[in-house]
Amino acid sequence: MEIFDRLESEVRSYCRGWPVVFNEARGSHVYDESGRPYLDFFAGAGSLNYGHNHPELKSVLLDYLIGDSIVHSLDAYSAAKRDFLQAVGDVLLEPRGLDYKVQFPGPAGNNAVEAALKLARKYTGRETVVSFTNGFHGMTLGALAVTGNSMKRGGAGVPLGHAATMPFDNYMDGQTPDFLWLRSLLEDSGSGLDKPAAVIVETVQGEGGINAASAGWLRGLEEVCREYGMLLIVDDIQMGCGRTGPFFSFEEAGITPDIVTLSKSISGYGLPLALTLFKRELDVWEPGEHNGTFRGPNPAFATGAAALRTFWADKDLERSTLDKGALIERRLTEIAGEFAEAGAHVRGRGMARGLAFEQEGAAKAVAAEAFKRGLLLETSGPEDEVAKLLPPLTTTVEDLERGLDIIEESAHSAVKIAQPA
Amino acid sequence: MEIFDRLESEVRSYCRGWPVVFNEARGSHVYDESGRPYLDFFAGAGSLNYGHNHPELKSVLLDYLIGDSIVHSLDAYSAAKRDFLQAVGDVLLEPRGLDYKVQFPGPAGNNAVEAALKLARKYTGRETVVSFTNGFHGMTLGALAVTGNSMKRGGAGVPLGHAATMPFDNYMDGQTPDFLWLRSLLEDSGSGLDKPAAVIVETVQGEGGINAASAGWLRGLEEVCREYGMLLIVDDIQMGCGRTGPFFSFEEAGITPDIVTLSKSISGYGLPLALTLFKRELDVWEPGEHNGTFRGPNPAFATGAAALRTFWADKDLERSTLDKGALIERRLTEIAGEFAEAGAHVRGRGMARGLAFEQEGAAKAVAAEAFKRGLLLETSGPEDEVAKLLPPLTTTVEDLERGLDIIEESAHSAVKIAQPA
Amino acid sequence: MEIFDRLESEVRSYCRGWPVVFNEARGSHVYDESGRPYLDFFAGAGSLNYGHNHPELKSVLLDYLIGDSIVHSLDAYSAAKRDFLQAVGDVLLEPRGLDYKVQFPGPAGNNAVEAALKLARKYTGRETVVSFTNGFHGMTLGALAVTGNSMKRGGAGVPLGHAATMPFDNYMDGQTPDFLWLRSLLEDSGSGLDKPAAVIVETVQGEGGINAASAGWLRGLEEVCREYGMLLIVDDIQMGCGRTGPFFSFEEAGITPDIVTLSKSISGYGLPLALTLFKRELDVWEPGEHNGTFRGPNPAFATGAAALRTFWADKDLERSTLDKGALIERRLTEIAGEFAEAGAHVRGRGMARGLAFEQEGAAKAVAAEAFKRGLLLETSGPEDEVAKLLPPLTTTVEDLERGLDIIEESAHSAVKIAQPA
Amino acid sequence: MEIFDRLESEVRSYCRGWPVVFNEARGSHVYDESGRPYLDFFAGAGSLNYGHNHPELKSVLLDYLIGDSIVHSLDAYSAAKRDFLQAVGDVLLEPRGLDYKVQFPGPAGNNAVEAALKLARKYTGRETVVSFTNGFHGMTLGALAVTGNSMKRGGAGVPLGHAATMPFDNYMDGQTPDFLWLRSLLEDSGSGLDKPAAVIVETVQGEGGINAASAGWLRGLEEVCREYGMLLIVDDIQMGCGRTGPFFSFEEAGITPDIVTLSKSISGYGLPLALTLFKRELDVWEPGEHNGTFRGPNPAFATGAAALRTFWADKDLERSTLDKGALIERRLTEIAGEFAEAGAHVRGRGMARGLAFEQEGAAKAVAAEAFKRGLLLETSGPEDEVAKLLPPLTTTVEDLERGLDIIEESAHSAVKIAQPA
Repeated sequence: MEIFDRLESEVRSYCRGWPVVFNEARGSHVYDESGRPYLDFFAGAGSLNYGHNHPELKSVLLDYLIGDSIVHSLDAYSAAKRDFLQAVGDVLLEPRGLDYKVQFPGPAGNNAVEAALKLARKYTGRETVVSFTNGFHGMTLGALAVTGNSMKRGGAGVPLGHAATMPFDNYMDGQTPDFLWLRSLLEDSGSGLDKPAAVIVETVQGEGGINAASAGWLRGLEEVCREYGMLLIVDDIQMGCGRTGPFFSFEEAGITPDIVTLSKSISGYGLPLALTLFKRELDVWEPGEHNGTFRGPNPAFATGAAALRTFWADKDLERSTLDKGALIERRLTEIAGEFAEAGAHVRGRGMARGLAFEQEGAAKAVAAEAFKRGLLLETSGPEDEVAKLLPPLTTTVEDLERGLDIIEESAHSAVKIAQPA
Repeated sequence: MEIFDRLESEVRSYCRGWPVVFNEARGSHVYDESGRPYLDFFAGAGSLNYGHNHPELKSVLLDYLIGDSIVHSLDAYSAAKRDFLQAVGDVLLEPRGLDYKVQFPGPAGNNAVEAALKLARKYTGRETVVSFTNGFHGMTLGALAVTGNSMKRGGAGVPLGHAATMPFDNYMDGQTPDFLWLRSLLEDSGSGLDKPAAVIVETVQGEGGINAASAGWLRGLEEVCREYGMLLIVDDIQMGCGRTGPFFSFEEAGITPDIVTLSKSISGYGLPLALTLFKRELDVWEPGEHNGTFRGPNPAFATGAAALRTFWADKDLERSTLDKGALIERRLTEIAGEFAEAGAHVRGRGMARGLAFEQEGAAKAVAAEAFKRGLLLETSGPEDEVAKLLPPLTTTVEDLERGLDIIEESAHSAVKIAQPA
Repeated sequence: MEIFDRLESEVRSYCRGWPVVFNEARGSHVYDESGRPYLDFFAGAGSLNYGHNHPELKSVLLDYLIGDSIVHSLDAYSAAKRDFLQAVGDVLLEPRGLDYKVQFPGPAGNNAVEAALKLARKYTGRETVVSFTNGFHGMTLGALAVTGNSMKRGGAGVPLGHAATMPFDNYMDGQTPDFLWLRSLLEDSGSGLDKPAAVIVETVQGEGGINAASAGWLRGLEEVCREYGMLLIVDDIQMGCGRTGPFFSFEEAGITPDIVTLSKSISGYGLPLALTLFKRELDVWEPGEHNGTFRGPNPAFATGAAALRTFWADKDLERSTLDKGALIERRLTEIAGEFAEAGAHVRGRGMARGLAFEQEGAAKAVAAEAFKRGLLLETSGPEDEVAKLLPPLTTTVEDLERGLDIIEESAHSAVKIAQPA
Repeated sequence: MEIFDRLESEVRSYCRGWPVVFNEARGSHVYDESGRPYLDFFAGAGSLNYGHNHPELKSVLLDYLIGDSIVHSLDAYSAAKRDFLQAVGDVLLEPRGLDYKVQFPGPAGNNAVEAALKLARKYTGRETVVSFTNGFHGMTLGALAVTGNSMKRGGAGVPLGHAATMPFDNYMDGQTPDFLWLRSLLEDSGSGLDKPAAVIVETVQGEGGINAASAGWLRGLEEVCREYGMLLIVDDIQMGCGRTGPFFSFEEAGITPDIVTLSKSISGYGLPLALTLFKRELDVWEPGEHNGTFRGPNPAFATGAAALRTFWADKDLERSTLDKGALIERRLTEIAGEFAEAGAHVRGRGMARGLAFEQEGAAKAVAAEAFKRGLLLETSGPEDEVAKLLPPLTTTVEDLERGLDIIEESAHSAVKIAQPA
């Protein structure tokens, strides 16, 4: 591993908690070079909702490549892109009555966010974008300005502007009515908040600590947006593609965002791909006004189209995700009960769940113990206070149970309490 | 093609000049659905320097995928990443005496640029970055601020700051000594230019119109950077990976940038991958200070490592690129001679060449004619005044000649002159 | 008056409500060209706390000028400046135990604010300044960024940044605990609020609508500042110089700001003068780092020193202001009672008082009626919903009563209610 | 003097070179407390073009004050303001055919500049303002962004944006054609310069080192502005009011700026007053969109009107200024000849003149020697390399000669050369 130390920047991060070299991966398991398996409750931070190297998608991908189909085509027309658009239309948009257009803004989630922000500003002619406490939208300057994390903001090296942070759902523990502050600012011509172009929100904040907004809060937010002429951007990069049950995480709330960003699991195979979807009337882009090299990653179109058709033609995955999510919640709630003394509690929705600890360092310790026991578990939240569970949606109930057992054992081993309840 | 109209955003661009659906691709040719071949002098805007679907890289990629090697690993350690780093060290850095560290900043060139700018600002504690007229660095807010194109800048929707534009080599037609303006500003404490963190430059501006900086100008720029304590960032995303002959486009000038960005052809197969390289002492990143989902695209590591070992273990490709570049230059110069009346002239270096026209619309017309004749040709420059040639470096001499013939014919058909010389 | 129309910019404002030409002024009265007197409850927006052309100050000013004492001295030493500093030290600072240094930042309040913001940023090395809803600090770009009024912000023509707006005392009608939002943001490293350099606040917001912060809220704010290492800037330009009773408006709360801005009545005679006071340890300015032409307006120093010694050597003015303030409050409360139907209520502290109406247009109508009856009355608040009373502190009780009678009559004449209570 | 040390901020500056306490002033002389006279070649940095305490203006001022005329009237109509506008119209605008409107933006030059920038941005809907190397426009954030001096810019504590610095006349010693760079940027849609709202320029840069633009360069600048739809702002704060001969410093060039700022000597008596003049069609201000406390400083209106009528009803002052300017130039040229070895040379126009030295520290040493000999002399330029002469325009020829003698003696005493020529 010397070469990583010698050649890779100190910015590397996950490898520090998991000091092994991964090699193979299948379904919910990854294997290090010694062949040791790890149960993956991390799923590429939500990029592998259908597991690693799903056999059907793999077959599609291999066929695509073997046949010398075109791999890179910028934003020219390709058969693979057409098929992907067809799948997006048939599987995602039509059944949900969404009249969206699709932009391929570049291969990464931050490209989708940057395009969304640019379009919202261009369309409205305004500059301020409302973001939320502990929101996370990416590392490029535009996306970073609407991201809460102070360490990552500090990396910008320049002041971040044109954004205003607002309290996410339940941020102040119910001590203040929802949207009281935002509405007060919008209503009052002396508030100091310049009329915003848009609001950008995650329905469940993944990096921010698995903070799930309630359906009511999301509906309230949509209402504020409509009332004050602000566009509603849902960043569904981590929570879309079925993570919370339905394909779009905002479906449960019954809202219709003006702009939606997707990435992570949209290719279905962990390949870089990102989309910015927006209402037809917002499509005021000039040709080429936003461009980029990797806007036509055809292998990802091929697996992406297959993933949509395989997993989203019916309601099976959605239902199983909700069931498995309920199972996870139940088990985590039991575990949290044992660690009430450490301030343990459960967060999340669907298969995006968090076991949060008020006790400093507890979540990180649990994740470290879990790794020793063969479970990959991320932490999140501003102080890494949440053990974050994002297992592939395709994880079997047995594997889920096994992973939850490991979490329980790890907590017993890692969290200091006088005596477990 | 109706679905593109119906579902894809108006921002799409290349497809407008090439209204066919591409399907397959091999070497220097792509094929539309009817099976019609197109000779590709565009190469994914420089992303396909080794041609489409190169058989050796394809074989590596298929083996990687068939074996269920890990595809997505964020920034955990993977065997594929290790091997890629090994190849970077052995093939790129050591032989050139470059003591660089490697950051994987995300899958796209703009991620590499954003990381470079952030690091330069963090390291120096300064904010201003000097960029050059007609420079192009990407569409995210940080990268866009150092990009010249006014249409693309306008898409930002917010003012772009922390940057200062300076004249690129020969910008003012030799009417002013090199760096006189920049040096005057730096020397003078009353100039209004805040001390810059860095300079970001392309050795040959691709999007900006195939403007090639001379080796002397680049050495002069390095000297100014050293003298005034500014970091020198070479954005080698389009001109690196051998486009101008040597792997790095700055090698000819004998300069050593502090930071180098790479993307486009670095995976060798058109897959999204980007690198930010920087001198060891600049590695002041905190772990996780810059992150992102697609920083471990292992299939791209696999093909990327293979590409480095296949094409850069010896000097063969460099030599053949220089030879082919000379051939292209010779032929273009002849063609330009025939169209002196339309202000035709030749630009570029290695296999990045441009046939520029002063006559408005001429370059676009040539590209349109070429497409009819089965040649893919991009235009660039602020007014699309340059027909831009970026054929795969592996294009045969026969194909090059054929493509140049098409260009000549297209010019005769498209450019209005009294009578060809 | 044709020349005003012809030559003066449309930006002129007060003259529109008072379409007469003023000529002379004495004490609490101004006179138009026809000799008609107006009782002045406006006092130059708080610049004439000792009335117009106060005889003692006038005598000092005439002596100064007659004797050919130096009028303009930039920031050279002058006898008048020395005497003014002496008075500031003896009368203001020493008795209150304030170890402040004095900066002469330019002649206007905005200069004092700009200097305060610059110093706070320089001293802390941070950029964000927390401001409050409906705060008003001036029209220059730095001051405007911490000002709430949207119309005035819009005049900037560029986005205003490096500031974050927070709820002023009672902004959300007691529906949320004080500082819950600000503390949450400061406590949470993921909140999106970059660590602020300072907080800038008015104890009573004059332009914002005579919103008076409670002493408890101000103490709470000072506590938050101490806890999180933010500098506390009190902008006492309108409410200082005795407007609320004590010389500094923050004395009642028992807090000690890090930086204080003064202007308006500090010269005592309506002459341009402004001060930035700050704790000794904050004096990190380089010589000349902030400069300006009118930093040595000696006639204003002369009247300013005399005003301090005349009015602030004992507690008489403070006491009489509190008494008169109580009288005004009592009378306004009675009037408001009669107009409960129009949502009338009373705001303010000391001799800064407001009669606010929820009924749209009522306050402006009252002011217009009052003008007809010979009373000058300003409106303020984001929707001009407050009739604002800032009579000279030296106004006699008889004149106060007379003015209040006029307000009552004007309300009866101007405010539409079913039937007065 | 202990109280200055104890109570005045370290930011104070001029007092450091002149460690005496000034007391009285008449004409071209100021007196310290011991009665020692100093010949004033500094004139309040151009604020005292008619000398200190000019008897006629003094009489007007005393009459105004004795009669209890209104002193402070915000932007209400006053008889004094009307009379001032009348004088501006009759004496300044009509005879020159200037159809300007007048804004009273606040008492200081920076207020005039901030208003000019805001109006230019509002009118054009653009944000960037072109400024020039070594320009100086004030210390508030908007004005500072178009100011060159790095020490003063650093005091901002935040990055300064929305501005682009360009070479002032002769900045690069004739090595590049005028406006080549600016025109290239404006012409080229890929230059990275966003279309500017305006250009702000001083005809002679006072603080920047008495750099005088040629009439041809100014005409060229006006032409560029017209060609590219940018507003031309002439900041005539230091060079207006007759400093270079005619009232406006741009008259000689025969140009007509869109916006003009005036301050310093406009009151004629050293009292704070500032104006922003602009073409009638630019008057798009909303009432109150830019406001401020000291926009109606009536005593300054009174002296200002008198000054205009006294000095500008005929051409006498203009002629005498040109004559005296020629005298100063002749004498300085002789002196410079004696100090060729120290790189001495003469700069300026009219009675704004500089004796510049390439030898480091020479100019400051000359000013220090001059002070010992009873002459007040400022230095300017980014490195204080220029001894700057701004005597009152009313200085007698005898006093001018005496001052120039002192400068010559001081140079002989202070500047190290092998042997005077």
